[in-house]
Amino acid sequence: MPDMTKIDCATCSVDPCTTEMVTIADAMGVETAFHRHASQNPRCGFGAQGLCCRICLKGPCRIAPTGESRQLGVCGADRHTIVARHMARMMAAGAASHSDHGRHIALALKHLSEGHLADYQIRDEAKLMSVAARLGISTGGRDNAAIAGDIARISLGDFQSQDDSIPCSWLKAFLPARRVEKLAALGIMPHNIDATVALTMARTHIGCDADPANVALGGLRVAMADLDGMILATELSDILFGTPAPVTTRANLGVLKRDAVNIAVNGHNPLLSEVVCDVAAEMAEKAVAAGAPEGINIVGICCTGNEVMNRHGVPLATNYLSQELPILTGALDAMVLDVQCIMPSLPRIAECFHTQIITTMPHARISGATHIPFREEEAVAIARRIVALAIDAFGRRDNAKIHIPDLSQKATVGFGAESVTAALATVDPEDPLKPLIDAITSGAIQGVVLFGGCNNPKTEQDNSYFRIAKILAERNVLALATGCGAGALAKMGMMTSEATLEHAGEGLKAVLTAIGAAAGLDGPLPPVLHFGSCVDNSRAVALATALANRLGVDLSDLPIVVSAPECMSEKAVAIGTWAMTIGVPTHLGAVPPVTGATVVSTLLTETVRDLVGGYFLIDTDPVSAADKLYQAIQDRRAALGL
Amino acid sequence: MPDMTKIDCATCSVDPCTTEMVTIADAMGVETAFHRHASQNPRCGFGAQGLCCRICLKGPCRIAPTGESRQLGVCGADRHTIVARHMARMMAAGAASHSDHGRHIALALKHLSEGHLADYQIRDEAKLMSVAARLGISTGGRDNAAIAGDIARISLGDFQSQDDSIPCSWLKAFLPARRVEKLAALGIMPHNIDATVALTMARTHIGCDADPANVALGGLRVAMADLDGMILATELSDILFGTPAPVTTRANLGVLKRDAVNIAVNGHNPLLSEVVCDVAAEMAEKAVAAGAPEGINIVGICCTGNEVMNRHGVPLATNYLSQELPILTGALDAMVLDVQCIMPSLPRIAECFHTQIITTMPHARISGATHIPFREEEAVAIARRIVALAIDAFGRRDNAKIHIPDLSQKATVGFGAESVTAALATVDPEDPLKPLIDAITSGAIQGVVLFGGCNNPKTEQDNSYFRIAKILAERNVLALATGCGAGALAKMGMMTSEATLEHAGEGLKAVLTAIGAAAGLDGPLPPVLHFGSCVDNSRAVALATALANRLGVDLSDLPIVVSAPECMSEKAVAIGTWAMTIGVPTHLGAVPPVTGATVVSTLLTETVRDLVGGYFLIDTDPVSAADKLYQAIQDRRAALGL
Repeated sequence: MPDMTKIDCATCSVDPCTTEMVTIADAMGVETAFHRHASQNPRCGFGAQGLCCRICLKGPCRIAPTGESRQLGVCGADRHTIVARHMARMMAAGAASHSDHGRHIALALKHLSEGHLADYQIRDEAKLMSVAARLGISTGGRDNAAIAGDIARISLGDFQSQDDSIPCSWLKAFLPARRVEKLAALGIMPHNIDATVALTMARTHIGCDADPANVALGGLRVAMADLDGMILATELSDILFGTPAPVTTRANLGVLKRDAVNIAVNGHNPLLSEVVCDVAAEMAEKAVAAGAPEGINIVGICCTGNEVMNRHGVPLATNYLSQELPILTGALDAMVLDVQCIMPSLPRIAECFHTQIITTMPHARISGATHIPFREEEAVAIARRIVALAIDAFGRRDNAKIHIPDLSQKATVGFGAESVTAALATVDPEDPLKPLIDAITSGAIQGVVLFGGCNNPKTEQDNSYFRIAKILAERNVLALATGCGAGALAKMGMMTSEATLEHAGEGLKAVLTAIGAAAGLDGPLPPVLHFGSCVDNSRAVALATALANRLGVDLSDLPIVVSAPECMSEKAVAIGTWAMTIGVPTHLGAVPPVTGATVVSTLLTETVRDLVGGYFLIDTDPVSAADKLYQAIQDRRAALGL
Repeated sequence: MPDMTKIDCATCSVDPCTTEMVTIADAMGVETAFHRHASQNPRCGFGAQGLCCRICLKGPCRIAPTGESRQLGVCGADRHTIVARHMARMMAAGAASHSDHGRHIALALKHLSEGHLADYQIRDEAKLMSVAARLGISTGGRDNAAIAGDIARISLGDFQSQDDSIPCSWLKAFLPARRVEKLAALGIMPHNIDATVALTMARTHIGCDADPANVALGGLRVAMADLDGMILATELSDILFGTPAPVTTRANLGVLKRDAVNIAVNGHNPLLSEVVCDVAAEMAEKAVAAGAPEGINIVGICCTGNEVMNRHGVPLATNYLSQELPILTGALDAMVLDVQCIMPSLPRIAECFHTQIITTMPHARISGATHIPFREEEAVAIARRIVALAIDAFGRRDNAKIHIPDLSQKATVGFGAESVTAALATVDPEDPLKPLIDAITSGAIQGVVLFGGCNNPKTEQDNSYFRIAKILAERNVLALATGCGAGALAKMGMMTSEATLEHAGEGLKAVLTAIGAAAGLDGPLPPVLHFGSCVDNSRAVALATALANRLGVDLSDLPIVVSAPECMSEKAVAIGTWAMTIGVPTHLGAVPPVTGATVVSTLLTETVRDLVGGYFLIDTDPVSAADKLYQAIQDRRAALGL
């Protein structure tokens, strides 16, 4: 048993299921992420400020926060260079991760188009056609496979081009032309995702780029490569698995069922989880035969959860920070993992239970897990094997250990540029964006906030999302949410008509109610629209770009803001950076390791504003962050004469 | 003036010019890398052991070296995963750096083949033809430009392939077939350099690969991508600038001339420095007119220095750790920088002198330096501008500040697989490798050691190279050297006939003397053959592969070892890793941050031996390291029945 650090279970999360289960874990002596967070205090002050460099073997070097001595690393790099290099590498790792996911799907689309993937189909022909049109691919008289082949070829081209003067195809096709030109003129439009990741690693090598502003601009370029990878990951996933449309489901641990074989899908990439969902439906009778009268219950965790939630209404068990807790209910029979943001502790915790922890990807294994290598060519067969393992595990449940919190929230999810436009079209079929533009112009809607990012135990889990969302809804700001932010707001009941009635200001409430009525829904649209997983942040960019193009302005002119109150992963650092780079004021609620270097912190929070229009707002307090986000919206409104 | 840390100037280096100039710097209150090294003590124990993780914003996390508490990061990663991820990222950064250099040259060759680069030529047609043959490109009846275009296309293809089952073209063409097959079967043959760098960053993202052995094997794969980038960088440079042939020159600070305009070229990439050399010859009269009777004196530092030294006999001023000291002589008029291992402190030190510090590459700027953007399309014009700046700076020299150490060593350099084979062919024109094989078989030569890597102030500069080289020469081990190791051994006089007479054992001396006589040289070959810059480590692989193929064995069967007694950069980590991966026992004289994780350290020093044949020997003591290297050679000899 580990040496458990004492924590206050009641205050680790605003999510009642989390506090309930952490309390149980604590009593059982099971160490969770919340315990490990406490055990890691105090954090290293050098590292927290970014004043530590481990880039070469002369070090580790540490810069004294103040004073005259120890102001340079052995190589001569100062605090600003050291901080800039570390941040640029975080952005590169984020871009590498999203685009790894994107490449995986692009290759699957390629193989499908070549007739090699019997287990996948093009499920969304409309999306196939709209993507083809956007990428300039001719469609007339051609079959879907040929069109998909061209789309895959152009997508993979964004990993292959060696001409650094031509921007990535997806960015060019997806962003407002004036934004593309602006960023190209600044040298921060990438031409090739992989090459830009590699360039970022090369320029941050010992003794290469030592001008912190130059390094930081290189970071912006690789963050734009991150956006490219995300866009293609999202759009190609829609082609393969369908574009999300509104669907009502539930969120939080209460979605686990005592009488079903419970399988959680966790990670980010839908290639496997989609097939698991299909196969689970087929195999329900086997589960019943094994003694689970309710058959198989697939639930989601983290962004794989968001993917299947938004496409199929699969209920969400929980988000990142509480991903260990479903195991502790004693009712989770298997957790199927793909890539990213998966806690390596899962097999360790599962040792105390019957849960099968199954890794599937060659570059995402975990010591102690069962590894079932996933191949798209045999997706259905592999998914069946996985589901069979879960059914088998169900038979080993210890009923005495079962404790499922009796709580979940209704959540209407499945939004995106297409479904929002479709909902608006019920109000004005001729000019679907007009009702939204009218509402913004009149001030009924003051602006739009996108909640993105992760969980970070440095703050009470989910609390900042919930508080900022409520404050901004009251002030008539429409919210979109992705990733673990969406998970938080779903769990906290913010994706319901009732939340609109309870929290939205009068203007926002009237608009959401009108759209709800026109679209034939039961009530108003929710005040927070679930825009998908973290790669799906590109859906918000699609909507913003449609608005900007319709108005003939740039993204940096719109009254839109981004908030990442619990940013944690390198992917989140990359996302926040491209959000700022495309022109959006971007709130970070966890302090990135830049505070040791005024050149870098000033660049990212102030100077960059003149270059690209966006900037970082760093604030750990949700109330003052909400004020600043609202003020940024007001600044944009004023500049537009609203 | 900085708060100078007290150091013992006499013991910071075995190189007398370095100690002389550091003593002067110390007296002047100029902080050098040696001072900064001392100021950084004590190093962070967590970082030194690898037990620190800054991969996400939940941290920084630190693992307690011992005990029961604080054994996991917040995400649940243990010490082994944390160490493996950091090491894999170091390897990725190394691969990104070498291949950035390689891509730059491949693109130049492509543009040249298209007729767009008037300032470059194919200087080595024989190399063009031999590379074409190796890559399977037809040459009959085709002009050089077309052949060069095909070579560039195949080279860039190693940055573009999306089929991860087909190994990189250069590795396949360059390594023994059995080695390629072995590594492919282990999943550690890369298909695409950039994609493998990106994959390494993605798999080491929070919550992705958490099986330390799997992460480490991913590291081996990206290290092999490093080798691919190095091979193509070296081979294409030879096509453009000529394959090195033996040439005698001098090394150490005494190569600076009081009566000449002294220009140092520093960094790694020969694309600019080659043109600077050409232009300097043209512009000599301008220097004379400006009052420098000896015209223009180009000297080299670090690996750009090694590139022009081996191709043109340009004297070497110094290696990495002492790169600040030429400025302190008061006689350096300009330092021209390209990429990598360039101290960001250079402009700061130059402030006290007249030296122009000139950065040239868009991704390698330094605050305080003069930036002259380099473009191959205008290479000559830009080089002229740079040389003119140096001549101009010469006029601002303060003669009172001039102090050039009166010391340099003769050095016969310019070796590689081709020139060694040519030298051996003077003994046996029919079967050039036979004399070497006979010498190894008879024991006259016990084996071959390659000295590679950097300088690291954790040990007395250049000392371990010098000591290990002497010990192994005495024991009849032939040495090759690259990078800052070659710089060290050149400065210490180990690249002369005299060194063979003084240090080589009887067997080695006889062989080197016989080859020297047959080749019509003045005396024996030196006991240490300068094989070029750090990317030129691929030249040693070429020689080893020729030997292995001639004998019908694998690289892991040969009595060859690698020693990196002062490894420092991430490039060195990557080089050391591929050296081990292709089957060679590899000594590291600086301890990488793996000591906190037995799984990783055992894997890299022991387990990996069964997989790939090579392994790391970590030893900071030069004498015992020499013993271990010699023993590794003996083990290989015994296995061969020698």
